Amino acid sequence: MSSHLLSVDSLSRDDVDHLIRVAARMEPVAQRRKVTRVLEGAVLGNLFFEASTRTRVSFHAAFCRLGGSVCDTTGFTFSSMAKGESLYDTSRVMSGYCDAIVMRHPEQGSVAEFAQATNVPVINGGDGPGEHPSQALLDIYTIDKEFARRGKQLAGAHILLTGDLKFGRTVHSLIKLLSLYAPMRITLVSPPGLEMPQHLVELVASRGHRVETREHLAADFSDVDVVYTTRIQKERFTAEMSEGFSLSRDYTVDKAFMDQRVNDHAIVMHPLPRDSRPEANDLDVDLNGDPRLAIFRQTDNGIPMRMAIFATLLQVEDLIEKDLRDVSWFVPKTVGVDDVER
Amino acid sequence: MSSHLLSVDSLSRDDVDHLIRVAARMEPVAQRRKVTRVLEGAVLGNLFFEASTRTRVSFHAAFCRLGGSVCDTTGFTFSSMAKGESLYDTSRVMSGYCDAIVMRHPEQGSVAEFAQATNVPVINGGDGPGEHPSQALLDIYTIDKEFARRGKQLAGAHILLTGDLKFGRTVHSLIKLLSLYAPMRITLVSPPGLEMPQHLVELVASRGHRVETREHLAADFSDVDVVYTTRIQKERFTAEMSEGFSLSRDYTVDKAFMDQRVNDHAIVMHPLPRDSRPEANDLDVDLNGDPRLAIFRQTDNGIPMRMAIFATLLQVEDLIEKDLRDVSWFVPKTVGVDDVER
Amino acid sequence: MSSHLLSVDSLSRDDVDHLIRVAARMEPVAQRRKVTRVLEGAVLGNLFFEASTRTRVSFHAAFCRLGGSVCDTTGFTFSSMAKGESLYDTSRVMSGYCDAIVMRHPEQGSVAEFAQATNVPVINGGDGPGEHPSQALLDIYTIDKEFARRGKQLAGAHILLTGDLKFGRTVHSLIKLLSLYAPMRITLVSPPGLEMPQHLVELVASRGHRVETREHLAADFSDVDVVYTTRIQKERFTAEMSEGFSLSRDYTVDKAFMDQRVNDHAIVMHPLPRDSRPEANDLDVDLNGDPRLAIFRQTDNGIPMRMAIFATLLQVEDLIEKDLRDVSWFVPKTVGVDDVER
Repeated sequence: MSSHLLSVDSLSRDDVDHLIRVAARMEPVAQRRKVTRVLEGAVLGNLFFEASTRTRVSFHAAFCRLGGSVCDTTGFTFSSMAKGESLYDTSRVMSGYCDAIVMRHPEQGSVAEFAQATNVPVINGGDGPGEHPSQALLDIYTIDKEFARRGKQLAGAHILLTGDLKFGRTVHSLIKLLSLYAPMRITLVSPPGLEMPQHLVELVASRGHRVETREHLAADFSDVDVVYTTRIQKERFTAEMSEGFSLSRDYTVDKAFMDQRVNDHAIVMHPLPRDSRPEANDLDVDLNGDPRLAIFRQTDNGIPMRMAIFATLLQVEDLIEKDLRDVSWFVPKTVGVDDVER
Repeated sequence: MSSHLLSVDSLSRDDVDHLIRVAARMEPVAQRRKVTRVLEGAVLGNLFFEASTRTRVSFHAAFCRLGGSVCDTTGFTFSSMAKGESLYDTSRVMSGYCDAIVMRHPEQGSVAEFAQATNVPVINGGDGPGEHPSQALLDIYTIDKEFARRGKQLAGAHILLTGDLKFGRTVHSLIKLLSLYAPMRITLVSPPGLEMPQHLVELVASRGHRVETREHLAADFSDVDVVYTTRIQKERFTAEMSEGFSLSRDYTVDKAFMDQRVNDHAIVMHPLPRDSRPEANDLDVDLNGDPRLAIFRQTDNGIPMRMAIFATLLQVEDLIEKDLRDVSWFVPKTVGVDDVER
Repeated sequence: MSSHLLSVDSLSRDDVDHLIRVAARMEPVAQRRKVTRVLEGAVLGNLFFEASTRTRVSFHAAFCRLGGSVCDTTGFTFSSMAKGESLYDTSRVMSGYCDAIVMRHPEQGSVAEFAQATNVPVINGGDGPGEHPSQALLDIYTIDKEFARRGKQLAGAHILLTGDLKFGRTVHSLIKLLSLYAPMRITLVSPPGLEMPQHLVELVASRGHRVETREHLAADFSDVDVVYTTRIQKERFTAEMSEGFSLSRDYTVDKAFMDQRVNDHAIVMHPLPRDSRPEANDLDVDLNGDPRLAIFRQTDNGIPMRMAIFATLLQVEDLIEKDLRDVSWFVPKTVGVDDVER
């Protein structure tokens, strides 16, 4: 694996297999049953030029669970850049303060530019319409983990990707990772105008997968293993697209769809946040409490996967087991909250 | 005690006694004479949807002193909620990242709603006009601690509550806790229109306390043990109330009042911040340096009490003593600062 | 050394010598080759009333590397001060929560006022046009360290200070520290109207240094050891000054200047940020990669110097060596980044 994690494009199947294996070994710590101090003394610079509480807290917690300390920077407070400082200078300075850097920035390519001037590992925490590789990695880790519990494997699976496949950054990254695990069957369903970009369809097909497109969800999906749905990102529409676009329930995944069109062993995933306002027609809340709904197991998996990313980039993944100790404090149990299967 | 701390209403006298006892055992760590690592590896999500530096830092420091790590979120940066995410989803996601959550939110009831979807302990750090239970607990801990030094007990005490008793959230919570320790004598003095709500007066009276009301501070309070005064919260007045309201010094606690109307062993408390602008007629600065002024001992007590809350909710309160080590670093002494009696 | 670090004026030559020696002993930890836990359990309040990501992260990382925890406060979120709370109250409350405080504030003198009410060490992280002592200390530490590698000493050196010598806070503090190490030769070059204040010139001269002024950089500086250049701070100009002021390249330090006018063993320093926009005529990027460019070694040195400041104020500087352990994680190497000589 390279010294930074900037894009899923740089990941080989061996890299992904490695990260999945390391993430699994992180579970005792991620689930608060063990404690490690393997990154003691290390400082993470958690630089969020764009707000994203969920992602920021997830990276923060993952680094802390490895025994490290975190320094957060959020919002537009990077005052020196307003004084004409180059990204090169900012990056080189920060790498003298921190041992690893997570950066989120609204401009595509900026994180890669930042990484060029640094001598510590940089992780892309999302660069606008660009990449968000840790999300795709936690997604594939979730599928692998859920499959393992059901005796399935990635190769041979049938994945349904639905919702906004044009602007949904996460499905672009995920489909690239899935493409490393041929042969799969991938079915795409999206509203007109929000189709998966053609070059990604071709990439996946060229790697030996069977890719199909359906116009709507009113069809037979009874052999699907994963339903991955995404929010319609109207804020990224052009004016022309917005005009006349009405978000119907035709693309909404809900309990009726799962019961009538799919099956009872498939899982439902979503990159979150989901828009719970009724008019949004996003993933329905009527699946809350349904064991097929894996969206919170999915976000929980962000911790072990991000721990795996840090551990691998900082080369301590083989030291974890030597350093584990029991937790002395309360370990929360599954009480009153759906979708927790620990 | 329940698994969350959302309201003082859920606390029994046994709960309060327990928290006071645990807070006392936390003192060596809170006072920087001992170090513990009992919460090592634990992550606190410190979620402040409304700014409150004092409260945020106090919770942050208390969790750190127990050996844990803290991830702060402040201001309106919870971007996913702006995209229509429900409090349920936000809460469930955060509980996968953190081992305990402190939440402050401008809307009453929101913290309790948040707690319903989580499987980690949630502490209400203030929900608008609602509750702020840790403040009331540190207040009663302060009274108990000051009394112990003077050979007094809670039962039998005479407490004067003065200032804005209508909008002062802290006096509402405090009077509920005090009501668990009958029989007390509680005297209420407030400007017209800012009286203690009648249902609280009745609650306290029903529990065997003697509650009296006086119109102003120009009276005999020579047997009072505690003078608890609060800022007039003009920002919460209706337009009708503001009109014609003039903040006189008639309700100002100052050195002259303490010397002439009270006595020399009573203590003066205030939830802070106090408004030091002369026109505010808040607690006078002429008491700075007077040993009766307990307001900074009171805020200092926020650390051991919040440590006690965390330790109790995470069930490590009996492990602390096994884990204490001496501090190697400088322990600041009382130099040049009033009101420090360590 | 006094119990706070508010100004370089309070530092004797012994103090500076001590801090330089302690900083040197911090290097193994600062460079991530060793780990210490000497400040375990200590909490730093990192209070930035004015944004300064670089300085905030540097203090944060330095305290973490000593084993402590940090609570950041940034921006104008100090809500209680908006409610009329005095700096005295704020300070006294915060000192009950934290074991040391770093404060940056836009108003000159505010940090010193803050320090008066506290009973923990306070470090001035910059108070507007006032002081920023840790910057001057890391500057002199850098010069001493670079000289040591070249077999030079502070006494006897020739330092060129250039750029905005009127508004550049850092050069004012640096020249005071340099003045403790007589005899030096100090040459000042600045655009008309931006000269070093006369009282500082006199102070330095009175301490046995040779101070010279040149009008521009088109001269012979072949025996200079340090070129210290600063950004023109046009945002501090009066309207009268701005009018007609044109920033020429006459005061720009670049490769041609270093090659033709200086020599090949001098170092180039800058307090950063540097304005990399061409029209700014700040320190030129054409020196990137030139070993004489010491600006990133300079910011790197902020970590050991700030560790030394904390360790000295908290009186643990002699305990560090007893507590060192090896780092288990990846130590970044010099790959692809200029100006790193570890």
